[in-house]
Order: sequence, then structure tokens, then C-alpha cells
Amino acid sequence: MSWNVASPVLERLQELHRRHADSDSGTVATYIPELARADRRWFSICLATTDGRIYEVGDSRQTFTIQSISKPFSYAIALAERGYADTFAHVGVEPSGDAFNAISLDPVTGRPANPMINAGAIATCGLLPGETPEERLANLLERYGRFAGHSLTVDEAVYTSERDTGFRNRAIGFLLRNAEILEADPTPILDLYFRQCSVLVDCRDLAVMAATLAGGGVNPLTGVRAIDESAVESVLSIMGSCGMYDFAGEWMYSVGMPAKSGVSGGICAVLPGHLGIGIFSPPLDANGNSARGIAVCRDLSREFGLHQYAVSRAGREVIHRTYSAAEVSSNRERTAGDRQTLREVGARAVVYELQGSLAFGTTELVVDDVLKRAAIADYVVLDLSRVTHMNSSAAELLTAVSVRLAEKGKRLVFTQRRAEFQALLRAGVREKSLEPDSPDDPMFPDVDLALEWCENRLLALHGASSATADAPDASDITATPETFALLRGLDDAERTAVCAILRPVSYRMGEPIVRAGEPEDSLYLVARGEVTAVLPLLSGHEKRVATFVAGMTFGEMAFLEQSTRSATIYANRDTECWVLYRSDVEKLAATHPRIKAVLMENIALNLCQRLRTTNATLRTLAQ
Amino acid sequence: MSWNVASPVLERLQELHRRHADSDSGTVATYIPELARADRRWFSICLATTDGRIYEVGDSRQTFTIQSISKPFSYAIALAERGYADTFAHVGVEPSGDAFNAISLDPVTGRPANPMINAGAIATCGLLPGETPEERLANLLERYGRFAGHSLTVDEAVYTSERDTGFRNRAIGFLLRNAEILEADPTPILDLYFRQCSVLVDCRDLAVMAATLAGGGVNPLTGVRAIDESAVESVLSIMGSCGMYDFAGEWMYSVGMPAKSGVSGGICAVLPGHLGIGIFSPPLDANGNSARGIAVCRDLSREFGLHQYAVSRAGREVIHRTYSAAEVSSNRERTAGDRQTLREVGARAVVYELQGSLAFGTTELVVDDVLKRAAIADYVVLDLSRVTHMNSSAAELLTAVSVRLAEKGKRLVFTQRRAEFQALLRAGVREKSLEPDSPDDPMFPDVDLALEWCENRLLALHGASSATADAPDASDITATPETFALLRGLDDAERTAVCAILRPVSYRMGEPIVRAGEPEDSLYLVARGEVTAVLPLLSGHEKRVATFVAGMTFGEMAFLEQSTRSATIYANRDTECWVLYRSDVEKLAATHPRIKAVLMENIALNLCQRLRTTNATLRTLAQ
Repeated sequence: MSWNVASPVLERLQELHRRHADSDSGTVATYIPELARADRRWFSICLATTDGRIYEVGDSRQTFTIQSISKPFSYAIALAERGYADTFAHVGVEPSGDAFNAISLDPVTGRPANPMINAGAIATCGLLPGETPEERLANLLERYGRFAGHSLTVDEAVYTSERDTGFRNRAIGFLLRNAEILEADPTPILDLYFRQCSVLVDCRDLAVMAATLAGGGVNPLTGVRAIDESAVESVLSIMGSCGMYDFAGEWMYSVGMPAKSGVSGGICAVLPGHLGIGIFSPPLDANGNSARGIAVCRDLSREFGLHQYAVSRAGREVIHRTYSAAEVSSNRERTAGDRQTLREVGARAVVYELQGSLAFGTTELVVDDVLKRAAIADYVVLDLSRVTHMNSSAAELLTAVSVRLAEKGKRLVFTQRRAEFQALLRAGVREKSLEPDSPDDPMFPDVDLALEWCENRLLALHGASSATADAPDASDITATPETFALLRGLDDAERTAVCAILRPVSYRMGEPIVRAGEPEDSLYLVARGEVTAVLPLLSGHEKRVATFVAGMTFGEMAFLEQSTRSATIYANRDTECWVLYRSDVEKLAATHPRIKAVLMENIALNLCQRLRTTNATLRTLAQ
Repeated sequence: MSWNVASPVLERLQELHRRHADSDSGTVATYIPELARADRRWFSICLATTDGRIYEVGDSRQTFTIQSISKPFSYAIALAERGYADTFAHVGVEPSGDAFNAISLDPVTGRPANPMINAGAIATCGLLPGETPEERLANLLERYGRFAGHSLTVDEAVYTSERDTGFRNRAIGFLLRNAEILEADPTPILDLYFRQCSVLVDCRDLAVMAATLAGGGVNPLTGVRAIDESAVESVLSIMGSCGMYDFAGEWMYSVGMPAKSGVSGGICAVLPGHLGIGIFSPPLDANGNSARGIAVCRDLSREFGLHQYAVSRAGREVIHRTYSAAEVSSNRERTAGDRQTLREVGARAVVYELQGSLAFGTTELVVDDVLKRAAIADYVVLDLSRVTHMNSSAAELLTAVSVRLAEKGKRLVFTQRRAEFQALLRAGVREKSLEPDSPDDPMFPDVDLALEWCENRLLALHGASSATADAPDASDITATPETFALLRGLDDAERTAVCAILRPVSYRMGEPIVRAGEPEDSLYLVARGEVTAVLPLLSGHEKRVATFVAGMTFGEMAFLEQSTRSATIYANRDTECWVLYRSDVEKLAATHPRIKAVLMENIALNLCQRLRTTNATLRTLAQ
């Protein structure tokens, strides 16, 4: 069976695409004939993460000219090349309050208000590096290519059209020359500007270019730095205050991400530290922004919780650690055979300890990792006990993964005690019609119990024992003294001598067998039933430290050290034990020293095995 | 000695205050006589964190009237009370591009451009809850008080002055009534507006009010919710795009935090998720913002890395976990006496495992916690091996703490292998003239070695042994067979019999004693010298799993299980051992079964002790 589970992120984007695909609002730009040729139905949505994952829906490989979305990237190059002070002397950083093609030059200095209006973008072109026009264009394309992750070209037809009809931009160029903002002949600079606007990109490119800004200037696909980190902050600031024409305030209010739009229908938005977003849909609204693009971004921001003032951000550290049932065991003691089985197939059960805030960005990271691991793992435990906050977008993504995995015969389960998380997750599960509160209910109070559940299922499927998936323990088996590892190596007469000093004792379900702190020096052999050792926690809960079933021994440490019990041990069910008193062993040893040597060796071997398991767990959890 | 170490955060703010205290730019507002009475030298800076810590410098308790800083808080109340749609119908969200007192009503709807200009703020007042003017004022003061964390009052003299001279605002009120944006008599609404502007606050209040927004609407001091979380996002958006008059673009560019300023000289800025900032200095620049306030905020943002597009945010999860040397031991084996000493005084050495990105916000949190713990702890280890990014602001704060603690005879040390972190931290340490590369050099490649260093120092100060602080081990002691715990309980004849089968063997420094994977069944007693067991890691480094000195035994597990060695063991110095072969023990046991019983019991007791230590470590590290 091939491993192919749809990402819930992609599914959400597909749903968003369907929701907006039939919108017919807006008008395709016609100021040059090439733009008018765009198909008004073209529509795509792309997300690129700063660690290089891409989600794309619709016509994401349809090329179009970048137009005004070029402006922040050229501004980034100018900043990196000329520094802040020199750039600031040629172009301001204040929103103009005027239309994109307004002239908006400072009455005193002649400086354009900001680099997102045409005048400011043309002034920025005058700051780009290169000795000759050819060199400047080559530089520009090379730098843009670093943002996109591959080489880009100019659409010559659009360029020619822009060049031949851009009279107003030419006027701006000469006014800038007059004010000495442009320090040389404006004609080649205007040529560069027209070419810059005619660079061909697709929606995926926009997402990757945005993700490069989101990642502090490093392209998430190539790992190549496109721009200095210090320039990124300034570029995002300008996109935040001036990127969406006259819609900047409402955009910031309702979408809340630095962004830039273009007349060909593209929008490029940045969630710093996390995501780049590209949207492409040619029809424009009255502000000159892609009509569908605005609608999609509003939905995306609200539903994914991407608003810059809503998102509590975190990165990879949302995954506190991961381990498998081959590396860490539940506190149920297993037979040597079961331990071996779990070492072999334990990788099929994986625990994710999550922490911090689960919002869209962090949850997307978890979901992606879980889906990859689930190619091998049949059981995934998400431990939410360290999670401080979860929004509904996060809960939806997690329950969606739970349902997807269930469809593949795999299981995603949660462990935590917080009622509000349980409610959020259960709402999702119920909606998606997994039966709540069934034996399959994917909620456990702690990792130990979740891990035991995974182990039981793995042993039922892969183990030698005839146990069932839900109760594969030995609680209805009665062990005879001969079967205990403790007596291994004794001859018949010696075994009879030991059996003669074993004292049978019975406990009712729930009855304490030993209590923490009590002085004791006896060893217990479980003949029938099940017992659990617990330590009290500061939180008031008890933590299970071990569960033993028939055929196992407990109490070795107090037996050896003749000290006090470290844990309290209860009978989980009606239980029968044999007790081996230290004083009886010593009496026997006076006449049969070999018996004591064998018992001590078997106890030491048992401690060896426990130390190995504990050391393996420690190596995993200390990471 | 009382515990009183200056916080480096406070010191940085004090330095900033000194740097700007002598500035004489700007002019105190005079449009009403009460404002003109302000002392132009008044100056304070306050920071409040979302978890309730406050840093304050200068005249932080000097009261002044809140003026326009009231606007975002009244807008927050209106949003919470009336909802987004109704509020949006009465006041827009677009920057006006005009002066604060411009009328800026939409030519069609009559709606003010945004709630940060006077027209929009007066329209907002019309949305505030209450049946009568008295009730509306009481409501407003009660809500403002929740933001500040205590009850607030109106300065009646300023109110009277505002009321009697606010002709332009009265005109705006009637224009809003005319456009039916105000739905009732504007006079009581204007009265409420004048009173709102005359609420008395101090700089600390501004920081706490800002921190309430930063914390999603919950006051960090009282824990009381001041406003619904959904309103916070909208209020911050408006502050981001319209909060700083005509300076909004440049503010966002160079400071990069949502903020609001007022004519009395206050500035209130928000770092969402982390901080509220209050600044107070009456002289205003040409844009009507506090001149010193702007300069301080620029420095603060740049030096602390607070720009919203620069900060990679994280919260409490920056502290992965903490533990003390009483809970977790280094891998150097200790004698029973030393173990007891470390259990008693181990709380004086604390390890912080940090993770994620260390920027100002996260480092401040660490620094605060470390300074509190250092009241008890003499040694603090910061484990940076999980830290993914550190900026210079973080490195400065950490080295400042290192120097402060050294002055108190305490030590802060770092563990990591990344050259860039070492360089950042060493630069700070060198500047502050701690000798680099001295035996005191506070850098260790991993926690195990740092913890051993702490243990050695604790044992030298508090232990019974005569060891020195830097080498408190037993490497120049020679152990005789009688001193080994392994032989305890044997009578003289039995001990002689065991000594007869011990085979002496010597190793040169660096020589391997056993190799991982080799079959072996012998036990080693260290007579002189020191040996270390190591496991290879995937990273290519080796991890030390144990160090043993004279008087200790190693190799028990292979001896018992007659299996293969799990680790490779080297001689750290020229070392002499006795080897006890399993086959020799078995031969001896045939005639002396009691000897084997005693040896096995002693081995089991040794494993017991190791299991206890490992379990204690596991309980700590599994948290």
C-alpha cells in the first residue's frame, strides 16, 4: 500500500479555492493590451513555509507579469546595496494617502513619499547596482531569481507595451531628474523600471519570494541568501504601511500581514518567521487590488489565525521531543518475549511531546511531521500536557489528521487533562463522526497510559502471546513457582526448599500491598492478578511507576537494602502473591549457601535488565 | 548577605534614560494652560511584561493627563460593546494622511477616517456604554481602570480647560451629528470626550495598559480581563497604521510596534505577546509626538531587537527545563559520602536547558528567572545546545548576568558547541574583563562536564573529602582490596580466597580497557587512576556515560549477563586494576558457595544504588 494521505493544509486551501472560484467581482486591467488578454477565471493560491514546504492550488504555474509586486524586491536590493541613509535620502517611508500613480513628491526635497508608489519605485530603480543598462538588468534578474529560487525572464511584449505607453511614468522620471532625486538620464532608468514590471512569475514564485522575506532573506528552497536580514525588516515595514494602495489600513485591520499587490492580479503576503503567501486572480477591485485575492486573504487570515497581532509565534520548538515505543516503554512490566517484540515493532508507535502555543503556523509544522512519520507508524500519540494555548484552527487541523489516519487504519490519539483542549478536539472529532467516548476515544490522561494502549495493540498484532488487543495482559493466568525467573538455576531439591518458605497471601481489588515509607525487607512473587506501584505527584495526581502481572516479582530493592519502600503498591484486581521474607532466606542460606547465591544472582540479573531499560529511556528523554 | 543583584534589563533602561535625559529638543504643548505647566525635564521609561514584571526608570510615578492615548482604549471598549460591524459603520480604519485635528469625514457617509483622529475618537465616544452621562463616565473609568490595574480619576482642572476651549472639537461633534454618525445630542458626548482626555495616569500605568494589550487583553498585574481578545487584534492594527499622527510610516519603519502618543508627552507601545512600553517626556516634536519619547523608542527597538518584523517570538518554552545537581548527577561516579553531600547541597547548582530563539523577549524571561534562582544557587549552567538563534541583545544580557553573579562570588557558565554563540558570548565576557580561556572560562562542551565542574566545586566547599576544587577526585589514591564494597561481608579467609583470584593489570593513559561489542564476563576493580566509559553519538562526538576512580568497580552487567560490553572504556590516566573473571568465581563457588552469595549480593546492591540514581534523573528529565 502506498503512503498517500492528503495534507489537511492542502485540503483547507482547496476548499478555500472552491469557495471563491465562482466569484465574478472585479475587472481585468486593460491599460495595456497584454494585460487585457488575461483569463478572468485564472485563480491560484500558494503557501510556502520558511522551511521549504509548498502547498499549491489552482493555476499555480500560470505565468503573468509581476508588475507592482516588483517594488518591494527592488527596494530590498537598493537598501542592501546603498544602505538605509542613502536610500532614505532618495525615497521616503510615509504612506502617501494618494493613488498608486500619484506623483506625491515632497514639496521641499522632491523626494517621493514611499517606494510602493510609482514615483518612489522609479527613484528606487535609480539606486540599483550596475554600470550599464545591460548590467543593471542582469543584476536585477539575478537578484529576483534568488528570491524565486530559479532564473526569471522579462516578457518582451509587455515590456514594449509598457515602454511605449508609459507617458505618465516618463513625466515622473523627468520630475525626479529635475529634483535631482535621479542623478542621471531618466530614460534608461525608466527602461529598467518597465522591464522590472514585466518580469514573468507564477503564483508559486510569489509564495516562495514572500517566504524568502518571511525567513529573514534566505530562500527556503535553495537555502541561498537573497537579501541581508537587516533589509528584510525595512521592506516588511513598508509593505505593512504602504503595500496595498488605498486599502492599506483596512488590509492591516482585517488581514494583518505585510503584503504587496500588482495590477496583473497577484498578491504576495508575508507571515514573518513562518509563511509566504501567493494569490493570483486577474480581476481587480476599485482600489486596484485583486478582488478574489483580497477575499481569499481575509478568509485565510481569519480561519488560519494569521493576523500579525493574533498569532503567538513559535518555531520548531513546538515539538518538545519525539520517541517511539521501541525507545521508551510504558510502566507496565512486560515479559522478556513481549519486551523483545516491542523492541522490534515499537517504531510503529510514536509519541510527540508538544509545547507552547498551537496556532496555525506551529500546528502546520506538527501536522507535516506527523503525516511523514505515519508512513511507518501505525499509532501516533500527541502529548498536549505542555501546550499552553490552542486555537480552533489548530484543533481542526489535528482532528482532520486523526480522521485521515483512521481512514488508513492508523490512529492518532491525544493525551492531556485540560478540559478546554478536550472540548476543542472532541468537537472536531464528533463533527467528523469518529464515535466519541467509544473504546476508540482518542484521549488519555497521560503518556504512560497512551503508550501502554499502543503497546497492547502492537503486542496483539505482532506478539507471540494470545492476548487480545484490549487486554493482552496475564491477569487471568496463574503462575506456578517453577515459572519464576527468580528460581532459575536451582535444582529440584533447592526449588522445593525455597517453595517451602514462600508464604501465600491474597489481596482484594484496590487493597494496598505495601505503602511508601514503610520499612520492609520482603520480595513478592505475583501468582495471579495485577498490581500497580504509584508515586504521589505535587499536582495531586498519582504517577504510575510500574504494573506487574502473574509470573513477575517486585520489591527487590527493599529486600536487598532492607530499607523502606519507595512506592505504594495496590492490587488492581483480586491478586494472589507469594512473599519471600529476607529472614527466611538467611535461615535457609546458613545450611544452603548455594541457594542464596542463585537467588542473589537472579535478583541482580533482574536489576540489570531494569537498568538497561531505564538507561535506554534516559538516553531518549535526556535529548 | 542580602540578595540584591541589579537586573541588566533595568540597567540598560537606566543607561538609556541617562543618554536621553539632557536632550532639549521639542516644545511643551501650551494650548491649554494646565499642559503648559508641565516640567520639560520630566522623563521616565517603563517596561511591563505580559507575565507581570515591571522595570521603571525616572519620573515614573509623575501623573499627567492621558490625552490622545485614551483613543485606542475607548475604541477597544466600543468594539467589545458594539461589535466590529456597528463600530465600523461609525468610524473607519484607514489612515487619513491628515493632521490629528483634521475633520477628515468621508464625503459620502460622513464617517471619520479612523478612531485615532479627534473626529473618529468623538464618534467612538458616541458608542460607549451607559444610559446617562454619569453612567457612561463611570463605565469608562471602570474599564480604563481594568487596563491600568487600579482605579483612575479625571483631572477636573484640565477637563474644565479642555471643555471651555475645545471649539474645534465642538464643531466636529456637530458635523458628526449632522451626518448622523452621532445619533444623539453631541454636547454630553463631547463632555465625555473631554473627560476621557483628562484621565490622570503615570508612565507606569501606560506600560501596564500596553502590556494588557500585549497579553491579549488580560491585565498582567491583576489577572483581570480588560477587553475581549478579539478586540485586541483590531486595536493593535489601528495603532499600527494610525497611532503616531503623520509619523506613522516612519515609526513603523524605524520602531515597528503598534503605539499611540498624546499631547501631554506620553507614548504607549506594544510588543504583542511580550511587552508594554510607557514613555513620558512633555516636549513635543513638529508631528506632536514626544521628542525624547521617539528617540528613546528608536533606541529601545534597535538595541533590544523589538521591531515586530525582526523579533522571532517565543514564550516561557524558551526554558526547556531546569534541574539541580541534587536531582541529576554528572556521569562521574561518586562515593557514597560524596553522593550524600551532593544530595544535601546540590540545589546550589542549577542547570537551565534553553531552546529556540534567544531575542530580547525570551532572554529577559531567562535573566529574570536566573537572578531569582541565584539567590539560592551558587552555580548556574545555561545549556544552549538547543538554542537555534541568538542575537547580540541576548548575548549582552547573558554576559551582563555572568559578570553580576561573579561579583557576588557566584558563577554563570554556558554549555554549547556552536562557534558563533561562543564568539558572541566571549565578546561580551572579554569586554567586561572576565579573563577568557582561564580555568574560569565559563564555556563547556556539554552539560555533563559543566555539571561535574559544579559538583567538584560543591564537594570542595561542602564535602568531607580533602580534595581541591579543581581536582577533587581520587586519582592519586591507591585502593587496597579490603576497601571495595564488593568484598564487604566476607570473613578474612574468604577475602583472602577472593584476593587470590584477582589478577592485576595496568593501562597507559588513553589506552582502551574494554571495547563496546566485545564479549566479556569479567569485573574490574580500580586500584589506582581513573577510567571513563563512552558511547559514540551519531553526531560524531562521544558521550561520556561514566567515570570511575580508585575504590570503584565497573563491568558488573557483562559479568552477570556474560554478554557483550555496552560501552568502550578508556584509561584517563595511567591506571591499575584488578580483574575478577567469572570463570574463577565459578570455580571458587564450587567449594565456597557463600563467597558467591556475598559477591552477588554486593553486586545487586550496587545495581540497586545505580537504579535509584537513574530513576531520580529520569523523573527529573522526563518532566
